[in-house]
Amino acid sequence: MRGIFNSPNPPNFKVTKASLAEFPALNGQSVSMAVLQFPAGGVNPPHIHPRSAELLFVVEGALEVGFVDTTNKLFTQTLQLGDIFVFPKGLTHFQYNADAQNQATAISAFGSANAGTASIPTTLFATGIDEGILAKSFKTDIATIQKIKAGLGAKA
Amino acid sequence: MRGIFNSPNPPNFKVTKASLAEFPALNGQSVSMAVLQFPAGGVNPPHIHPRSAELLFVVEGALEVGFVDTTNKLFTQTLQLGDIFVFPKGLTHFQYNADAQNQATAISAFGSANAGTASIPTTLFATGIDEGILAKSFKTDIATIQKIKAGLGAKA
Amino acid sequence: MRGIFNSPNPPNFKVTKASLAEFPALNGQSVSMAVLQFPAGGVNPPHIHPRSAELLFVVEGALEVGFVDTTNKLFTQTLQLGDIFVFPKGLTHFQYNADAQNQATAISAFGSANAGTASIPTTLFATGIDEGILAKSFKTDIATIQKIKAGLGAKA
Amino acid sequence: MRGIFNSPNPPNFKVTKASLAEFPALNGQSVSMAVLQFPAGGVNPPHIHPRSAELLFVVEGALEVGFVDTTNKLFTQTLQLGDIFVFPKGLTHFQYNADAQNQATAISAFGSANAGTASIPTTLFATGIDEGILAKSFKTDIATIQKIKAGLGAKA
Amino acid sequence: MRGIFNSPNPPNFKVTKASLAEFPALNGQSVSMAVLQFPAGGVNPPHIHPRSAELLFVVEGALEVGFVDTTNKLFTQTLQLGDIFVFPKGLTHFQYNADAQNQATAISAFGSANAGTASIPTTLFATGIDEGILAKSFKTDIATIQKIKAGLGAKA
Amino acid sequence: MRGIFNSPNPPNFKVTKASLAEFPALNGQSVSMAVLQFPAGGVNPPHIHPRSAELLFVVEGALEVGFVDTTNKLFTQTLQLGDIFVFPKGLTHFQYNADAQNQATAISAFGSANAGTASIPTTLFATGIDEGILAKSFKTDIATIQKIKAGLGAKA
Repeated sequence: MRGIFNSPNPPNFKVTKASLAEFPALNGQSVSMAVLQFPAGGVNPPHIHPRSAELLFVVEGALEVGFVDTTNKLFTQTLQLGDIFVFPKGLTHFQYNADAQNQATAISAFGSANAGTASIPTTLFATGIDEGILAKSFKTDIATIQKIKAGLGAKA
Repeated sequence: MRGIFNSPNPPNFKVTKASLAEFPALNGQSVSMAVLQFPAGGVNPPHIHPRSAELLFVVEGALEVGFVDTTNKLFTQTLQLGDIFVFPKGLTHFQYNADAQNQATAISAFGSANAGTASIPTTLFATGIDEGILAKSFKTDIATIQKIKAGLGAKA
Repeated sequence: MRGIFNSPNPPNFKVTKASLAEFPALNGQSVSMAVLQFPAGGVNPPHIHPRSAELLFVVEGALEVGFVDTTNKLFTQTLQLGDIFVFPKGLTHFQYNADAQNQATAISAFGSANAGTASIPTTLFATGIDEGILAKSFKTDIATIQKIKAGLGAKA
Repeated sequence: MRGIFNSPNPPNFKVTKASLAEFPALNGQSVSMAVLQFPAGGVNPPHIHPRSAELLFVVEGALEVGFVDTTNKLFTQTLQLGDIFVFPKGLTHFQYNADAQNQATAISAFGSANAGTASIPTTLFATGIDEGILAKSFKTDIATIQKIKAGLGAKA
Repeated sequence: MRGIFNSPNPPNFKVTKASLAEFPALNGQSVSMAVLQFPAGGVNPPHIHPRSAELLFVVEGALEVGFVDTTNKLFTQTLQLGDIFVFPKGLTHFQYNADAQNQATAISAFGSANAGTASIPTTLFATGIDEGILAKSFKTDIATIQKIKAGLGAKA
Repeated sequence: MRGIFNSPNPPNFKVTKASLAEFPALNGQSVSMAVLQFPAGGVNPPHIHPRSAELLFVVEGALEVGFVDTTNKLFTQTLQLGDIFVFPKGLTHFQYNADAQNQATAISAFGSANAGTASIPTTLFATGIDEGILAKSFKTDIATIQKIKAGLGAKA
């Protein structure tokens, strides 16, 4: 991850990973890391790591974070520099840099060399799931599904 | 799950579980089951089981199923009576009874006594996640978020 | 397992499996299933799954079931349509359709893709274990061992 | 297990265990041991450890050993002083001291603090399993089942 | 770990942990973190984490690191800002800030909520292990053992 | 391990292993064993098994044993013939035959087929770790480090 210290504040949220794919020596070691860089106002959309909990440590700025458990309870917190927060395995979670001017940076640890990440907006609306199934699932109309897809740059 | 054989075709998708919560003898046994009942046109919206893969077996009717992996690849299949399908651990997946007249039923096995379920529409839009964060995450406007929330019956 | 819905009531107890051997997609998913079909009076002899507990769900008819734990305590139950029962990992268990006229069917879930099955009568009396060792083990005579072997169709 | 070095050659097969039940310090350590003492002609009847493989080491005399896998294949071997043998997890296995005059002793290691033991003759014939189910399972008559039960000292 | 960003360069090597003991929410999550602060010339003596591998990420300065595997092979590397390195589970390892003027900081991830740490110098020479056993173990005389103990501030 | 019963009392401490490397059938079985032979006054220096606890059983003579936990607490015990003792996973431990005339023998069980062993004196002083780092770590001078290295037969 040597390059991350040279990168200017990215215009969008950016993840730099040290997991099995980037670092084969992690094979069998059940641990990995990531650096999360948030520009002012940047968001890491709701997502899931299917194979590990995430322990997040704020090393620059501040972050709004949250996750939803399997009883549909939302847990949120505002993290300051030096704070940590744990997102349990397989639960949907997000982070947001609410500051209008300053970037934020976090370092995350995972108890798997291959935690995996699935971003929910992309998973749902940019992979080709049938629009009728999505409309029924979200109890909305196909036009709304198509509007969201268009916003995410997904093909019609 | 004795009652499920007496229940008429439900008007909505319905899950009956035999997991640790309903059946404490499963403690430490790393297995559970569920019966999924789909009325004609019924859908089990995109959801996640954070602690187990799911092996689904169609015992009545037919089902359209799909899941999305961590590389954003969608896998779909049409299952007939007697077919099985596996949804890997922690990945978003759905089932849909496309038949306009006949109900469908599936029995699912899980390799955990407490697989857990998080329905994505509810998780995202009915738990109180900040609307601004959702709008940024889905690259849409707050009005669209509010429209979806209203459709799902969530509080404004 | 599509064929099982076409099969008439089998004359003998019959298992149809969806495990790693039949369904390679289960590799790494720690789950499998089986359909158990019992004709009237049919028995699934005492057996063991060395690598998983079994969660059994009665979907047709009724079953007498039982298992023995490592303190030599027998647990039995009569299961009706819709009932479930768990056989702990590695313990000897059996199922029996006591009804003289109606078949019974169960669907079982396992928390391993490769639970394995060892039927005790076959394991003991049809694999060539020395008859003297068996006679000593069962505190009986070799003639009795040979009689049981003959009944099971094992070579002398 | 200090006392085992003072015990004379036992008239019957005898196990002395150092597992979680006898030695609570093993809690969480995933290991246990047992000393197996065989008089001349002594047998450890077919049995199962539901939660661990067993690694057996012959420290006195010689032993005939065997196990049956889930494809009904019997593996046997004659072990001499200093030999080791592994019985895979959950499979039925036995040991026999074929020597008419000399005792034999083995020390076994288990990869669980609580491997458990279920002796097959006792499990089947001395725990009260319905005689009709046993007769059907072994494809024999109830008289034969009762004869075996009597030999094992089980109640009719 | 909020305080670590306020702490001046410590005169000695200093660890700030976010593990189960400091952060009970990590219970069951199989992950933890630590911040390692090295003054100029500071050393983290050879030590072991009995329950996890460690993935170390250099966020300030540079570090000399090394570990020894179970074949007595030493692996060393000089890490610069942004580099990562993995110390396998249970192996002896160390880190050293060879720079004479600048401090160094690393953030470490562990695949256990309770990785544990045993510093080898303290373990061996400041816990009361019999000096004769230590002298025999290190093939040296008791005077040398006592000299090392004195240097470490251990009681004679 | 058949040969160990023919070996005379060794002049030095000697380990004979039955682990994955010597006995490939242990693959996947999570268990292994070792025989430890101590001449009069013999020591098994402080060492670590990175992947398993060790359950030790004294089968000849007596042994002084000890381990240090992650709070730097030393646990010691004198074991007599027939005694057992457990060394937790990944913690530094040792055994010593304090008897001036009689040998001692122990048999150890491990809950891993590949527990691994790292002897601390060799790990620290005979693998080429930088002498300056060692001197700083042990708060001593380089001459003392070199003296210990020489005693262990390590290259300067």
